[in-house]
Amino acid sequence: MTRFQPAFAAPRSPAVSSPLGLHRVLEPAGVLPQAALRLDASPEIWPDEVRVGVRRLNLDAASFRQLSEAAGGDPAAVRAAVLDIVASRGKMQNPVTGSGGMLTGVVEAAGPDSPLGLAPGDRIATLVSLSLTPLVITDGLARWDGRSEQVPCAGHAILFGRSIAAILPEDLPAELSLAVLDVCGAPALTHRVVTAARHAAPAPALAPVVAVLGAAGKSGSLSAAAARRAGARRVIGVVPHEAEAGLLRAAGLADEVVVADARDPVAVSGAVERAGGPADVTVVCVDVPGCEGGAILSTAPGGTVIFFSMATSFSAAALGAEGVAADVTMLVGNGYAPGHAELALDLIRTEPGARGLFTRRID
Amino acid sequence: MTRFQPAFAAPRSPAVSSPLGLHRVLEPAGVLPQAALRLDASPEIWPDEVRVGVRRLNLDAASFRQLSEAAGGDPAAVRAAVLDIVASRGKMQNPVTGSGGMLTGVVEAAGPDSPLGLAPGDRIATLVSLSLTPLVITDGLARWDGRSEQVPCAGHAILFGRSIAAILPEDLPAELSLAVLDVCGAPALTHRVVTAARHAAPAPALAPVVAVLGAAGKSGSLSAAAARRAGARRVIGVVPHEAEAGLLRAAGLADEVVVADARDPVAVSGAVERAGGPADVTVVCVDVPGCEGGAILSTAPGGTVIFFSMATSFSAAALGAEGVAADVTMLVGNGYAPGHAELALDLIRTEPGARGLFTRRID
Repeated sequence: MTRFQPAFAAPRSPAVSSPLGLHRVLEPAGVLPQAALRLDASPEIWPDEVRVGVRRLNLDAASFRQLSEAAGGDPAAVRAAVLDIVASRGKMQNPVTGSGGMLTGVVEAAGPDSPLGLAPGDRIATLVSLSLTPLVITDGLARWDGRSEQVPCAGHAILFGRSIAAILPEDLPAELSLAVLDVCGAPALTHRVVTAARHAAPAPALAPVVAVLGAAGKSGSLSAAAARRAGARRVIGVVPHEAEAGLLRAAGLADEVVVADARDPVAVSGAVERAGGPADVTVVCVDVPGCEGGAILSTAPGGTVIFFSMATSFSAAALGAEGVAADVTMLVGNGYAPGHAELALDLIRTEPGARGLFTRRID
Repeated sequence: MTRFQPAFAAPRSPAVSSPLGLHRVLEPAGVLPQAALRLDASPEIWPDEVRVGVRRLNLDAASFRQLSEAAGGDPAAVRAAVLDIVASRGKMQNPVTGSGGMLTGVVEAAGPDSPLGLAPGDRIATLVSLSLTPLVITDGLARWDGRSEQVPCAGHAILFGRSIAAILPEDLPAELSLAVLDVCGAPALTHRVVTAARHAAPAPALAPVVAVLGAAGKSGSLSAAAARRAGARRVIGVVPHEAEAGLLRAAGLADEVVVADARDPVAVSGAVERAGGPADVTVVCVDVPGCEGGAILSTAPGGTVIFFSMATSFSAAALGAEGVAADVTMLVGNGYAPGHAELALDLIRTEPGARGLFTRRID
C-alpha cells in the first residue's frame, strides 16, 4: 500500500497505514495518536484517510480555561499558546489537561479505502478529539480574538479509517451543531445508565433520582434532558451561583435547581439531599478540579457517578470513594457511544430549554 | 460535644467531630481529608474516633515507585521523602500520585461513640487509604531500608467514624494479610463485574472472557482468581516478561498467559486477541502510566475496562476510548465494596497459586 497522493511523502513514511492512525505517530514510536507527543500532519492522505479543510476549532472547556488562566487572561498570549502547541505537536492537545476539542470543516479529499462515507464538499464535524487529530493551521488564527473556545481557523486536518465524523445537519446553525456534537457522549452515556437503573428498579415509583453537577452548562444541560427522557423520577440540577440557577429554572430541564459549590463535598451533598437526594445517578459536568468528593457523597449506596469533566482526577475519585466507604460505581465518561450524535441533536431540536442554554453560550 | 481526651486540644478545634474527618482538616478548609493539603494528626481522640499504634505502613505501589524513581534509587533519600511528607502533611499522601497505601497496628484507644467495634489491643489493618489518615511517625523510620513498600514504623494514626478497618486474621501472617487487604477492592469489583456479565450472557457457553493486565502482581493475581470464581469462561493473564509468565503459569491462575508491554496498545491487544480475546472484561493492575489505550483496544465492543492502577490518567482513558470509537464501559476502581476484605482473604486461603505470588512479593 502506498500513499494516495504521494507527492509530499516524508522519507521515513511507514509502508502501510493503520485505521488507528499509528502511521502518523512521530514520537514516541508505537503509541496511539492520542498519547503521542508529535504527529505527522502533512496534507497528503493515505488510501483510508480523509483530509478536511478546517473552518473552526472548538476547544475543550477545561483546556481553554487552563490556557486562559496560564496566560493571565491575555487573549494574544492564549492565541500564541494554541499556535505553538499545534506547530510543535501536529495536533491541538493541551499539554496540561491532555484534552483537545473538535473541529468543523469541509472535506477536501477522501481516500478510496476510507470507510467514513464522506465526499469532497461535505460539511462535517469531527467526533474524535483534537488531541489525536493531525492538524496544521495556516492563517495564524488571525480571525480569533482569543476570548472564546470557538476558534475561527484555516488549515487542514486528517481523519483516519477509524475516526468518526458527522455531516452537519442543514436545519441547525453550524456553531450550534458543533457545540452539541462536542459533548454528545455525555447525554448518550447518561441516557444509557439512567435507563439501566430504571429497568433495575423494583417499581416504577422507584425510578432513579439523577443529580447533574453543572447542569446549566453544555454537557450538563443535555445530560439533564437525557436523564429525563430516560425516565428519571427526579432531575436535580446543581449550579454554582444564583444567576445560573435562574437560567436553568427558566430552561425547565430540572425538577429541582440548587446552588452549591461542587468542590465543597459537604455543601453539595447537603444541597442534593435537601432537593430529594441522594442521587441514584450523579453526572459530573463541572470543568474545574476537585468535584470528586462532592459527587461521591451526593450518591446513594449502590448508585453510579459518571465523570464527564476532563478536570477529574482518577486517584481523587478512587481514593475518595474508598475513604468514605462509598459503595458507588464510578464511570469514566466515554466520549463515544453508538448513536451519540443523533441523540444529542434530537435533544437540541426538541428541548427548547437546552437549545436556549446552548445558544446563550455560543453568542 | 467535646474531645474525648482534651488534654492536648488545639486552640482552634471545631466544636463537633465529623464521621468523615472534616474536623481534622487544617487546609484548605472544607475539603475532605483525602483532598486536604494538611491534617491535624494530634493523638487525642474525639468520641467517635479510634487511635492506632502503628506497626507497619504498606505504601501504594505507584507511590513507592514514583518516590524511588525521584530519588534515583537512593534508599536514604526515599526514607527522607516519606518522613518529610508525613511531617508536613500529617498523612502519607504522595503529592505526585495522590495515593497513599495502608497500615497495620494495634488499637490504643477507642472513643465511646466509635461505630467501628474496635477495642484496645485489637490487631488491625486500615482499609481506608493513608492519603486521608492522620499519621505521626515517631521513630524516624529507623528500621526501614527504603527498598520496599513495606515500612516498619512506630507512631500513631487516627480512624474516623466512617473509616474502615479489619481485625487481622489469626491464621495468616500479618504481612500477608496487610498485602491482601491493601488490594482487596480489586477482586471484589472484578467479581461483581464478571458476575454481572455472566448473568447478562445469552448462554453459559458465552460467559465472559477476562483479561488481566499485570496478572502476576498483587491486585492482578487476586483479580484473576476472582474472575475465575465469578464464572469467567477464560482468564487471560498479561505480564511484561517471561520471568513473570513462568511464575503466573506455575500459579495456575490464568487459562492463558501472554507476554506483552501493557503500554504498547498494538502489542497488548494483539496478544490478548491471539489468546482468545478480545476480552469482555479487562482489568488493569499495572502500576505504570500509559496502559489506557492497550486496555481499551483489548476489550470487545460492549465490554468493560476496570482501571485499578493509580497510575491511570482520566483524560487518557476518556479520550483514548473516544479516539478509537470504542463502545466500552470504563470503571474507576473503587477501593471499597461491601465484603471486600472477606472475599480477598478467602481467595488467599483457598488459592495456593495466589498465595504463592503474594508470599514471593513480601519476602
